[in-house]
Amino acid sequence: MDPDLSRLAAAVEEHGADGYLFDGHDDSDQYYVCGFDAPDPFLALYDGADVHLLVSGLEYGRAEKESRAATVARLGEYDYQERAARDGPKEARLDVIAAFLADHGVGAALVPGSFPTGTADGLRERDLGVAVERSDVITEIRSVKTDEEIDHVRAAQRANEAALRRAEELIANAEIRDGILYRDDEPLTSEFVKREIEIELLRNGCALDETIVAGGADAADPHDRGSGPLSADEPIVVDIFPRDKESKYHADMTRTFLRGEPSEEVRERYDATLEAQEAALDAVAAGVTGKAVHDAVCDVYEDAGYPTLRSDPSTEVGYIHGTGHGIGLDVHEQPTLNPTGEELQAGQIVTVEPGLYDPEFGGIRIEDLVVVTEDGCENLTDYEKRLVLD
Amino acid sequence: MDPDLSRLAAAVEEHGADGYLFDGHDDSDQYYVCGFDAPDPFLALYDGADVHLLVSGLEYGRAEKESRAATVARLGEYDYQERAARDGPKEARLDVIAAFLADHGVGAALVPGSFPTGTADGLRERDLGVAVERSDVITEIRSVKTDEEIDHVRAAQRANEAALRRAEELIANAEIRDGILYRDDEPLTSEFVKREIEIELLRNGCALDETIVAGGADAADPHDRGSGPLSADEPIVVDIFPRDKESKYHADMTRTFLRGEPSEEVRERYDATLEAQEAALDAVAAGVTGKAVHDAVCDVYEDAGYPTLRSDPSTEVGYIHGTGHGIGLDVHEQPTLNPTGEELQAGQIVTVEPGLYDPEFGGIRIEDLVVVTEDGCENLTDYEKRLVLD
Repeated sequence: MDPDLSRLAAAVEEHGADGYLFDGHDDSDQYYVCGFDAPDPFLALYDGADVHLLVSGLEYGRAEKESRAATVARLGEYDYQERAARDGPKEARLDVIAAFLADHGVGAALVPGSFPTGTADGLRERDLGVAVERSDVITEIRSVKTDEEIDHVRAAQRANEAALRRAEELIANAEIRDGILYRDDEPLTSEFVKREIEIELLRNGCALDETIVAGGADAADPHDRGSGPLSADEPIVVDIFPRDKESKYHADMTRTFLRGEPSEEVRERYDATLEAQEAALDAVAAGVTGKAVHDAVCDVYEDAGYPTLRSDPSTEVGYIHGTGHGIGLDVHEQPTLNPTGEELQAGQIVTVEPGLYDPEFGGIRIEDLVVVTEDGCENLTDYEKRLVLD
Repeated sequence: MDPDLSRLAAAVEEHGADGYLFDGHDDSDQYYVCGFDAPDPFLALYDGADVHLLVSGLEYGRAEKESRAATVARLGEYDYQERAARDGPKEARLDVIAAFLADHGVGAALVPGSFPTGTADGLRERDLGVAVERSDVITEIRSVKTDEEIDHVRAAQRANEAALRRAEELIANAEIRDGILYRDDEPLTSEFVKREIEIELLRNGCALDETIVAGGADAADPHDRGSGPLSADEPIVVDIFPRDKESKYHADMTRTFLRGEPSEEVRERYDATLEAQEAALDAVAAGVTGKAVHDAVCDVYEDAGYPTLRSDPSTEVGYIHGTGHGIGLDVHEQPTLNPTGEELQAGQIVTVEPGLYDPEFGGIRIEDLVVVTEDGCENLTDYEKRLVLD
């Protein structure tokens, strides 16, 4: 994939800089620009046309092979070892970076807000200009996906479906004793289901840092990950957001399950959420604002009598979060489907995830992942929506 | 655990600053100082006596409960929403940080080299002093572990042993056909063994980003992760460095296995590596330098006729890396057992991992994890050392 960085080139020129500089690792913007990551910080320069890397000897071979860089230089080419022995590793690295920038005709660099102050100040001491880019232009470029990126997210969502299926099976096959779900004579816990989700994801090439399997009152806080034995007759929110280990792209999906008998209230809340999600999915299209999609959800919930943050900014129950977010190299990225959401563009990938929360009834959330198209959206999620598992 | 931050207080005073400031997340120094982490950057101030946090409303409850901070403030207490609506989220956050620092009497802050330039420059524009601390004092403090930290590493090494046992079983039980290891009529691959290692680690509360299962010529590069079918009659290096998901502390261990018949050369290399490791383990003690431990390994290898980077700095075969590294919240941290290694202190945890590499014979490495004590070391690793699996 060759990203279109013309807007980054324009930002560099606008700031009167000679290039855009990264000095990090494990950073989605840096990875997007250079197509390479490493276990330790490395330097990446975009000169308005090409990307140039400065890496340790250890990473050189892989950077040559994997990155999109036009050139890859080693610290050693700038006598790093000799300088480090004489001046210490930090001063040596700064001197090497300054020499590398001089080689590429860079006297002033634009950098991301996250650029390390140690490097920025060190370069300034060496008479180089360092200015912070504050409009997040790369994040904006990243929000519209290429076909290849969409395929990466699609593949991660397939793995996600397999993992969700495993969670559903565990809940569906549990025995109910005294209102608690059991498996092999042990209470079925959030922790166990989460572990089995992780194992299924690993088998499908994905990993994750966190996942949510939350029942009852736990799920009334949308950020609670859930813990302890799962109960019958209560909704259980399962929200999985894995990353494909190879492509580094994410997927995201939520379903709410219930074993036993839902109360009438829970049934109504589930149906209202289904209807709210349908309204949002119908609203999504290029040119429509994220705010309009969010409003479509609020309309349904408010008509059904539930409070939303739109109708009552201080409410702690009802619909208390935004409708969705972009996804890609980061699990949360641009654009947003919330009260400040701007115009959607074709090729953006967003989650659509309305939900209702109340400590009395627990939490309910239904989340799909869609690609924005010119006249609507394509749903990347293939998983039925069903509350009660018999 | 309450870390002893007196040396950090001294560094703050030495620099004429009023406090030490972090603005990050997923950072071991920041986590060590405040006992808290979050999915997004948050502010942590050490004022020479106590830690004070500034977090989003979303993280407030957890920060109050989990962190070691004396006080936890919310962005909202400083009118963040109103400021953001008026001035945008970045300016708003900087204004809030400036107000928070004023509340704590901080006019000049010491920061780590990784501190974001966007925040540093923004605070300087608001007439606050920001200076980079360049001696890595927190990293130094972190190198000596408390009993609680040692227990965390010990627990992670138990999980590591279970995972290594699983890898050993897979290799030991493989069928040999035409020199290739098979399992269920499929070649046994590095990828499969790594996945099974990961699954076993998950079952034991650990996770990892990378692991090494490398046979034959792959293993002659100590940084190669290994790929493809595993062969008989060749050493297979299995190096696992998991992180306990709860405590966030790491473990590390390597064994080299072989199915079939080792050549005489491979047997000799294995025995020399065992002897070199024994010499290093004998050498480790408080007051001994990391260099002396490394030299003990080089002595054994050179006496046995193998090149080392000490005897030939340009060699690409033989003993071509350092003897070990500290481990804790990071998988590589202070101190080091290498040619520049300084005096070891009781309570430091280090790996001891000599090895021999040559594309002709593959790679051999044996790695244990030990705690430095006043008169030697305690080995945290309980796993036999045996090359040939029958």
